[in-house]
Amino acid sequence: MPLARIDLREDAPPERVRVVSEAIYHAMVEVANVPPHDKFQVITRHAPDEIIYPEEGYLGLNYTHDLIIIQITWVSGRSIDVKKKFFRLIADEIHEKARVRKEDIWINLVDTAREDWSFGNGEMQYAPK
Amino acid sequence: MPLARIDLREDAPPERVRVVSEAIYHAMVEVANVPPHDKFQVITRHAPDEIIYPEEGYLGLNYTHDLIIIQITWVSGRSIDVKKKFFRLIADEIHEKARVRKEDIWINLVDTAREDWSFGNGEMQYAPK
Amino acid sequence: MPLARIDLREDAPPERVRVVSEAIYHAMVEVANVPPHDKFQVITRHAPDEIIYPEEGYLGLNYTHDLIIIQITWVSGRSIDVKKKFFRLIADEIHEKARVRKEDIWINLVDTAREDWSFGNGEMQYAPK
Repeated sequence: MPLARIDLREDAPPERVRVVSEAIYHAMVEVANVPPHDKFQVITRHAPDEIIYPEEGYLGLNYTHDLIIIQITWVSGRSIDVKKKFFRLIADEIHEKARVRKEDIWINLVDTAREDWSFGNGEMQYAPK
Repeated sequence: MPLARIDLREDAPPERVRVVSEAIYHAMVEVANVPPHDKFQVITRHAPDEIIYPEEGYLGLNYTHDLIIIQITWVSGRSIDVKKKFFRLIADEIHEKARVRKEDIWINLVDTAREDWSFGNGEMQYAPK
Repeated sequence: MPLARIDLREDAPPERVRVVSEAIYHAMVEVANVPPHDKFQVITRHAPDEIIYPEEGYLGLNYTHDLIIIQITWVSGRSIDVKKKFFRLIADEIHEKARVRKEDIWINLVDTAREDWSFGNGEMQYAPK
């Protein structure tokens, strides 16, 4: 069910884009109880003036043009602990496999209800019983 | 009030884009109690590696590069029944008028409050009384 | 914490994009209790058929191709009064500094929880105590 939006610099290598996509999917399945193959993502590449971050940094973190903005909409119900592990897994895998600085991996989650999803065919596959 | 984000392949014919836009708007007015002319949509076209879906399919559904990701943010309060009809109407009209497979029509809804909207002029037009 | 998505016409002057970005940030800090340097924004430029608005207008407002769609995801808790001031400040500053019509400034807010944010390093910086 989750929809992940991934926004990053337009000249990011395609391999980095692939790694980011896989890392998000892996973390979902591993710690967030997302079923296998539930992998829907939209990637948008941006010119340098289209991804804005504080040049002075924020909360002691410093950012570069490699900043990757990840916004995930999913069904509510994950605990704070699960979300913490989820953030960590994503940053770890992207860092390890694509050599992006962990400070440049930025994530936001948006909760919705089970009835807010249609995976195709005009049906509400997750309709509450 | 709703804001619809529509993400689809960059080489989709302009007529398909127009049909998708109209189908969403028609379904809103017909079953979701959205007032006429309340039609605000953002379309983004994507390269082949920018719309990610499971090659193996999901929940018995199979997807192609024609996948259209629709995400609609609106004011909460629609019933499960209304949302079911809404999903169906959108898929039906897009399929009928643009010949897109119904499996390739993917929809997510995000609920917000009445005070979360400004339609222009810096005003909160839907402010609760 | 907020993530602002800004969608506007592809041929908007870069200076307009900069003004919109700054206006949103200024309003956040001035009336919405957002800390200094908490400035994360994603801008997407669009072809003419990618930003859809009602040609007949809506609620007595009329729109042009200059329409700027702003969608802000942040932590819940702002009052209706704060949101009203926030809308007004954004429209006022964009109008004053970039000469965009106030009717062409469109804003939507999405509330989330404190645990829904990672500002980098795979950490949940705003984790509830």
